[in-house]
Amino acid sequence: MQQQFIVVRQHTENICRPLELEDYVVQPVADASPPKWHLAHTTWFWEEFILSKYANGYKRFHPRYAFLFNSYYDSVGERVLRLHRGNMSRPTVAEIMEYRAYVTEKMTHLLTDMPPEVQGLIDIGINHEQQHQELLYTDIKYILGHNPLFPVYDTNFAEQSTAPVPTEAFVHIPEGLYTIGYTGKAFSFDNEHAVHQQHLGAFSISTGLVTNGEYLEFMNAGGYDNPLLWHSDGWSWVKEKQVISPLYWHKIDGQWHRYSLSGLEFVNPEHPVTHISFYEAAAFAEWRGMRLPTEYEWEAASERFTWGQRWEHTNSAYLPYPGYRKPPGAVGEYNGKFMINQMVLRGASVATPELHSRKTYRNFFHPGLQWQFNGIRLCKK
Amino acid sequence: MQQQFIVVRQHTENICRPLELEDYVVQPVADASPPKWHLAHTTWFWEEFILSKYANGYKRFHPRYAFLFNSYYDSVGERVLRLHRGNMSRPTVAEIMEYRAYVTEKMTHLLTDMPPEVQGLIDIGINHEQQHQELLYTDIKYILGHNPLFPVYDTNFAEQSTAPVPTEAFVHIPEGLYTIGYTGKAFSFDNEHAVHQQHLGAFSISTGLVTNGEYLEFMNAGGYDNPLLWHSDGWSWVKEKQVISPLYWHKIDGQWHRYSLSGLEFVNPEHPVTHISFYEAAAFAEWRGMRLPTEYEWEAASERFTWGQRWEHTNSAYLPYPGYRKPPGAVGEYNGKFMINQMVLRGASVATPELHSRKTYRNFFHPGLQWQFNGIRLCKK
Amino acid sequence: MQQQFIVVRQHTENICRPLELEDYVVQPVADASPPKWHLAHTTWFWEEFILSKYANGYKRFHPRYAFLFNSYYDSVGERVLRLHRGNMSRPTVAEIMEYRAYVTEKMTHLLTDMPPEVQGLIDIGINHEQQHQELLYTDIKYILGHNPLFPVYDTNFAEQSTAPVPTEAFVHIPEGLYTIGYTGKAFSFDNEHAVHQQHLGAFSISTGLVTNGEYLEFMNAGGYDNPLLWHSDGWSWVKEKQVISPLYWHKIDGQWHRYSLSGLEFVNPEHPVTHISFYEAAAFAEWRGMRLPTEYEWEAASERFTWGQRWEHTNSAYLPYPGYRKPPGAVGEYNGKFMINQMVLRGASVATPELHSRKTYRNFFHPGLQWQFNGIRLCKK
Amino acid sequence: MQQQFIVVRQHTENICRPLELEDYVVQPVADASPPKWHLAHTTWFWEEFILSKYANGYKRFHPRYAFLFNSYYDSVGERVLRLHRGNMSRPTVAEIMEYRAYVTEKMTHLLTDMPPEVQGLIDIGINHEQQHQELLYTDIKYILGHNPLFPVYDTNFAEQSTAPVPTEAFVHIPEGLYTIGYTGKAFSFDNEHAVHQQHLGAFSISTGLVTNGEYLEFMNAGGYDNPLLWHSDGWSWVKEKQVISPLYWHKIDGQWHRYSLSGLEFVNPEHPVTHISFYEAAAFAEWRGMRLPTEYEWEAASERFTWGQRWEHTNSAYLPYPGYRKPPGAVGEYNGKFMINQMVLRGASVATPELHSRKTYRNFFHPGLQWQFNGIRLCKK
Repeated sequence: MQQQFIVVRQHTENICRPLELEDYVVQPVADASPPKWHLAHTTWFWEEFILSKYANGYKRFHPRYAFLFNSYYDSVGERVLRLHRGNMSRPTVAEIMEYRAYVTEKMTHLLTDMPPEVQGLIDIGINHEQQHQELLYTDIKYILGHNPLFPVYDTNFAEQSTAPVPTEAFVHIPEGLYTIGYTGKAFSFDNEHAVHQQHLGAFSISTGLVTNGEYLEFMNAGGYDNPLLWHSDGWSWVKEKQVISPLYWHKIDGQWHRYSLSGLEFVNPEHPVTHISFYEAAAFAEWRGMRLPTEYEWEAASERFTWGQRWEHTNSAYLPYPGYRKPPGAVGEYNGKFMINQMVLRGASVATPELHSRKTYRNFFHPGLQWQFNGIRLCKK
Repeated sequence: MQQQFIVVRQHTENICRPLELEDYVVQPVADASPPKWHLAHTTWFWEEFILSKYANGYKRFHPRYAFLFNSYYDSVGERVLRLHRGNMSRPTVAEIMEYRAYVTEKMTHLLTDMPPEVQGLIDIGINHEQQHQELLYTDIKYILGHNPLFPVYDTNFAEQSTAPVPTEAFVHIPEGLYTIGYTGKAFSFDNEHAVHQQHLGAFSISTGLVTNGEYLEFMNAGGYDNPLLWHSDGWSWVKEKQVISPLYWHKIDGQWHRYSLSGLEFVNPEHPVTHISFYEAAAFAEWRGMRLPTEYEWEAASERFTWGQRWEHTNSAYLPYPGYRKPPGAVGEYNGKFMINQMVLRGASVATPELHSRKTYRNFFHPGLQWQFNGIRLCKK
Repeated sequence: MQQQFIVVRQHTENICRPLELEDYVVQPVADASPPKWHLAHTTWFWEEFILSKYANGYKRFHPRYAFLFNSYYDSVGERVLRLHRGNMSRPTVAEIMEYRAYVTEKMTHLLTDMPPEVQGLIDIGINHEQQHQELLYTDIKYILGHNPLFPVYDTNFAEQSTAPVPTEAFVHIPEGLYTIGYTGKAFSFDNEHAVHQQHLGAFSISTGLVTNGEYLEFMNAGGYDNPLLWHSDGWSWVKEKQVISPLYWHKIDGQWHRYSLSGLEFVNPEHPVTHISFYEAAAFAEWRGMRLPTEYEWEAASERFTWGQRWEHTNSAYLPYPGYRKPPGAVGEYNGKFMINQMVLRGASVATPELHSRKTYRNFFHPGLQWQFNGIRLCKK
Repeated sequence: MQQQFIVVRQHTENICRPLELEDYVVQPVADASPPKWHLAHTTWFWEEFILSKYANGYKRFHPRYAFLFNSYYDSVGERVLRLHRGNMSRPTVAEIMEYRAYVTEKMTHLLTDMPPEVQGLIDIGINHEQQHQELLYTDIKYILGHNPLFPVYDTNFAEQSTAPVPTEAFVHIPEGLYTIGYTGKAFSFDNEHAVHQQHLGAFSISTGLVTNGEYLEFMNAGGYDNPLLWHSDGWSWVKEKQVISPLYWHKIDGQWHRYSLSGLEFVNPEHPVTHISFYEAAAFAEWRGMRLPTEYEWEAASERFTWGQRWEHTNSAYLPYPGYRKPPGAVGEYNGKFMINQMVLRGASVATPELHSRKTYRNFFHPGLQWQFNGIRLCKK
């Protein structure tokens, strides 16, 4: 446990290593957060929920940090409004790294002799920090990818594996009752619990993800101009944001490029398309005469295909499983309070840390967001 | 059929009878429409989808009305933006009544000798007009209820039946596979089709609706001040809109009043609470340590309780049933395009026209809307 | 006085005579008001400032009207927010006409035996109502001109006189000290008082107004595409509102048309251009290598040219004359509180009632507004 | 000239010396800019208007910087939108300091053998950089003063001199013709040229500025709650922004504090009030039964009082002097394009660099801005 804790803490810092100090500070859009904030917030979590409660005589690193680095935990105290995070030049990155070192050291010490009732919270803390590692990648990409100079994050960063892309094929899944939810013994989030039966009709699901080449066909066929392919809210989104392509795509001298963490490059038609919103995924599926899977279908079929490079859009709203109850107190705010207005994504992505994925994992976003490494898997019948 | 058509057309006009001419014109909020617009739009539907296609030599009443009274049918043509409907003083109410008479007469004639393939569209037209009858009531209430003079619509209009309110009791529904969707032979919407099996765990559901008195307890216990009871988006909604009570409630001289279509009155603690958003319904349920039913639970249990005065909030997102496919063309826009970002309501309300309700009917609204005659039924376990 | 009062009251109602009842109700933009509101507000003014104070035993027509028809007079009481005026279907037009008749009758009676100290207020009331007559025309034009059916207000309404347009000529005004402000004995507003000396350098001013034909040259020369011609805020206005022509201009089948109160018509190149904002007037002048006059120059030169069909843009901000003091109380809010962020217009327009113009009159609007019958007179040196 | 150039360039950098690197990056409000941007933009000015035109074989430091650091000069090229400046983590501060060194060196070389026709542009460049020095102070204060940790900029920075505050006294200025505008031989801006005569009535003007103590009296007398004291737009501003005190004031434990560049401190009742908008200054004057001076009165009286610590609000709109013509080309955008919707401030402030003030200098801001070191001087009669 101590070992895992230290590895996770270091990984967070390693993700930031290629950055210039200035990159830690900015927040170009309300949905993203400055890397500096992620570094501090994940540290605050340990301080707030574990050290201040279970470490004898623990002295907080700074009296105002609980106010500054709290996120959505309305019950803990006031919050610095999410969209002002990018205006906070202080504390400095150096001060936050000190804060991290201080808390990491105190936690390491606590973990040598941990009260058994804390185990669950520590698991949450580790998984919480891993979730922010994922967000660090997506937010860093947003920061660098919206800079007119298109700075490279890491020339060796591969946004997709070089494994051969499977040819499109559909596997058939028979009608039946399927068990949904996490049944293992390792950590999982409360939103995966409440294991239950789900009756599914027969369906077919693709073994591969939609590629850039296929998505370009949709674009060239006028996909962004045909309201009949879109949800009503999706069409409003296209018009209001003037969307004409996935995020990070740029037409330069007549040629589609995309910004990746290794720099600006040609769009590779064989790579899986990514940075498309739920609305775009659904419109593409409609255009192909198919549909997105539900999260139940995805989970039931997940042994039959390879996944893990792209969070995959589903046509399921993020809602509680039958029998789900929010845990009491501030930790109860972790998942339950977001169970409205969002759609479920399944799988994992190139930004997901090792050991932080499983087939029952439920990620969730508002349907108009593009900044995740997401993708499209199709379903029919 | 001809008879039913005429009855429906007349009912639409009857709903407007108590209005002053000025009331037909205004649109105090983007979500509502002027009564004048409802009168014209329901007429346009017949003209656009039936008369102009199936009535030999049909001459449109006015060349611009297709543009003016189209609603969400993006594929038919340009639209007058929804939020400008209340700025259109012309055509006048008298002109729209002429338009109605003209189309009703042409339709009546067509119905004497109707091509059989039109039957389905006529059913849709009738149900479409009935949906707008419901909206006429809610929009008229919004218009009058937001006027500082609180004008009476009809002193005899009862927003709830005088039948004794059932004492709160919970009925138990056993685990099992339940058939969901419309299996009868009368008209139903495409979103109720695709009949399928749904596996449900055991649960208990209340036979009565939450009353004003119970809701006042929630208010008095600080329900609107406790973020832990609310969804994250719900809490933002409360703060941004400064909501402190159901819609149409006014504290006057220390006493809660509510505007009803029969005028301003004291809040009756025994009546079912209404004009609460999904967010409020969910927060109330959380406060009571219970939850809202899913739409499947509601449908499975619906024989066990009385319903029909309030559209009832469910915790189900409005999504396609397994196997659902949008019908082709503009009529395909009817339901499918709205299957995102909305929650399902089940039942019917005092505004629902006769013969326009059934247990499989799926209504849907964004979770922050209060202007429907909705209500709260609780579930536990 | 009594006679003048009655004439003014009738003229207000006459302006509305060609309207359909529905036209009285709507408010398509926050800057305009529904005709119904103008009818009531001008009546409220008499009730609030004269009848309720000077008519013995006067009984207000309705207890809530002071709340409903108050405008900007923050010190009198609460206000119904300006942008909700168009949502008020009640009181009805008929009720407001009753209100008018009631107040007109009481006032007529009071005027037979008027306390001498009221004279000044009555002058203000008459001039106040005349200002709203002007606004009635501009707001009616906005309502009808933004209706997709382009309804005619009055086929005989001439937006410009048929007198021959003067050929462009410039008259020279010598350097000197000029007296500015109203020195006569009839009514004038406080903002014209504080007569003072203004030193002006020599300048030349055009005897004619810029015509549609000249303005079309500006448009065809790319005037709306060249940021160097515009104020910084003006350029933002052009971009944000996507302005490409004066208000009410429509290019139909390749031909410029304009909506006038007598209906849609071809743009007549010899008529004076109108419905252009200050920003457009200033950009046009810049393009011509000239400038707009200041209000002092305009007043000093006003005997040398014909004016009265168009309010004329000046390059003067609406500020107090030296020595100006706001009158005490609510009437003091009449002019002084608007002396910021607005530009002065001089002259009068086709919408101005008889006897309501003089060379010292100061009208004022925000620089981005187009809905007045305004125009451009040029100055050089 | 070379010497002056070097001193100015160094002063810009010196102002930033106390900052942490993170402070260079952020932009907490659209009206402020990141210090990094000021450092680069002032450098770009030299490169764009002088080096690229007059230095033989000059090679731009970076091909994209003209795009990134252009400000309002619409005619030079595209602009990075003003409100995205704070999202640009690259170029880094180190890169911008290199850019500065490169341009300073090239300029220094050019200045040893300068073509005479460049003199005027160099004067503008120096004064332009000095204006940004002033903005650096105000923007740094905004950045630090809006940080919840209230970091100190420089413990020795005095926001006001320790010279004794003059007791309030009014000096009388007689009626007459006064010469307005710059008549000297040193550099001045085009907006001060076009020297002309202005006729002024007699008036009295205060020799001292309004103090915090006096302003507290206004606050305690309900100044922010009385609409009769405010312009209409000012009252909307108070309500919308919920203003209850000058900027940077905080009531802590019942005691008014203010953030200054030397840290959080008690409000000193004897210091001149600052960080109040034009609206607040005008409301205060109204409350005192006095008024703000016009810019002409200020200039005519300026020998009679001490000024230089606070930019002083006037009741004059920022408009061209009689005979003013915009210079041709991009430099012509410098002043003329802002001559709308802004009010003139006169004097200078603690943030103004040495040699950058004179009695004819015209500064200008929108009336709702508080972030300048401004102040109130009163006038009567």
